[in-house]
Amino acid sequence: MDMQNIQNQLDEVKTQLEALKKGASENKVAMVVFSGEMDKVLASFVIATGSVAMGMDVVMFFTFWGTPVLRDKNKKVGGKDMMGKMFGAMLPKGPGAVKSSKMNMGGMGTAMMKSVMKQKNIASLEEMIALAEELGVRIYVCEMSMDMMGFKREEFIDYKGLDFAGVATFLAEAQNSKVQLFI
Amino acid sequence: MDMQNIQNQLDEVKTQLEALKKGASENKVAMVVFSGEMDKVLASFVIATGSVAMGMDVVMFFTFWGTPVLRDKNKKVGGKDMMGKMFGAMLPKGPGAVKSSKMNMGGMGTAMMKSVMKQKNIASLEEMIALAEELGVRIYVCEMSMDMMGFKREEFIDYKGLDFAGVATFLAEAQNSKVQLFI
Amino acid sequence: MDMQNIQNQLDEVKTQLEALKKGASENKVAMVVFSGEMDKVLASFVIATGSVAMGMDVVMFFTFWGTPVLRDKNKKVGGKDMMGKMFGAMLPKGPGAVKSSKMNMGGMGTAMMKSVMKQKNIASLEEMIALAEELGVRIYVCEMSMDMMGFKREEFIDYKGLDFAGVATFLAEAQNSKVQLFI
Repeated sequence: MDMQNIQNQLDEVKTQLEALKKGASENKVAMVVFSGEMDKVLASFVIATGSVAMGMDVVMFFTFWGTPVLRDKNKKVGGKDMMGKMFGAMLPKGPGAVKSSKMNMGGMGTAMMKSVMKQKNIASLEEMIALAEELGVRIYVCEMSMDMMGFKREEFIDYKGLDFAGVATFLAEAQNSKVQLFI
Repeated sequence: MDMQNIQNQLDEVKTQLEALKKGASENKVAMVVFSGEMDKVLASFVIATGSVAMGMDVVMFFTFWGTPVLRDKNKKVGGKDMMGKMFGAMLPKGPGAVKSSKMNMGGMGTAMMKSVMKQKNIASLEEMIALAEELGVRIYVCEMSMDMMGFKREEFIDYKGLDFAGVATFLAEAQNSKVQLFI
Repeated sequence: MDMQNIQNQLDEVKTQLEALKKGASENKVAMVVFSGEMDKVLASFVIATGSVAMGMDVVMFFTFWGTPVLRDKNKKVGGKDMMGKMFGAMLPKGPGAVKSSKMNMGGMGTAMMKSVMKQKNIASLEEMIALAEELGVRIYVCEMSMDMMGFKREEFIDYKGLDFAGVATFLAEAQNSKVQLFI
């Protein structure tokens, strides 16, 4: 047992420690927002803003039916093909237009829920998005979904920290996050 | 290369080790039960009880449509406002009243599934909840959802380990859990 | 401060390091595919194949409505009881028969989506499954669901890496995975 032997052991320990540190998760929440219903998107933002409040970094990946929810109802874009026009017309335009997944009842239930939320001082979806932006929640809009539904970048809401990306970009974030959810 | 130098390196390694240990996840499953359908809630309890059997700690956060599933059909509470009465009447009262998300067919499909499950010795939702209680699965009922739907604490099932909490309480659990699911 | 003391500290550090390594997650994605709709199953395979491309191991657990999606439409099995025949007839037979969760419109919307996907060179569900097989994505079919729905092993698709398992087998994989999703 000599000094050199000790130093060698110590170096080996350090190498293993570095490998562990490299594989360790960051204090981050990564969410896929696939569903476009009011209640589910609202839940995703409640989790997002709550996570920031607890010191976590948050990244949301809006895909499929989640994508149209982030459109700006006041923005108009041209140059869409027939399919793009159909998707554009049939899917809700922005957070104010989404319906509840249950008890929608032709829109009456969704309106009722919005009214109850207002009365109980529960933030609306539009307010939650504004809060998320303020808190630095990052948002990716799925490029494959945009391509499929014919959405253009110019028709999305103004949101600092919104970017357009493929699934690989999101997976790289999810891979080293502590919490992952598919909503 | 002297003894003091070695000791200094060792102390640095110990500090890094402590930091890693602090960030490491607990052997725990954290689930958000958002959906209130029989099949999805059943799946969440199959995962919950299965996880305990594998030595994991389990915590479930019942929110939105998951909330009414935990009401006790034999408990009656008064003093609700009109909206609370409407939510109370329209949402299923307890695990025996929930419907399947598919093939419900006006309740006939749900009844058919229940009958098949019984015949195949697959535990019912009520039995799974009782088993989860016995196994120490912890349940949080979301306070925001209760507030929105006008539910009162007195109308929930008797379940040892059931508590009422906000999303922050759940996120603190999810943050250091190995597995997280949104159901 | 002597050599023996240093060696003792070093041994303690090594023990703690081993414990941490044992608890560390593998670079793996574990998904529960509960929903049987075209869009959700497609999303699960986009994530699966994307994760492999990023060097992650992937395991998918098909349960409930996800189960029938993996049936082979050209395989016929006999000896089912009445309930099994009903489930078999009512649930989609294979990836070509599944419908979209939204905008299905009696099948017209699903057809429209498939046509757009083809036009935009987005892989179909059948192509994604073939790619996943090639990339080594492992699939478990839930035995409890098979039992409930009366499905037999012989009616599932030929897929290298497909196995039949209970929830415990999947949870053992999820427990040491970096990413978990319930779809």
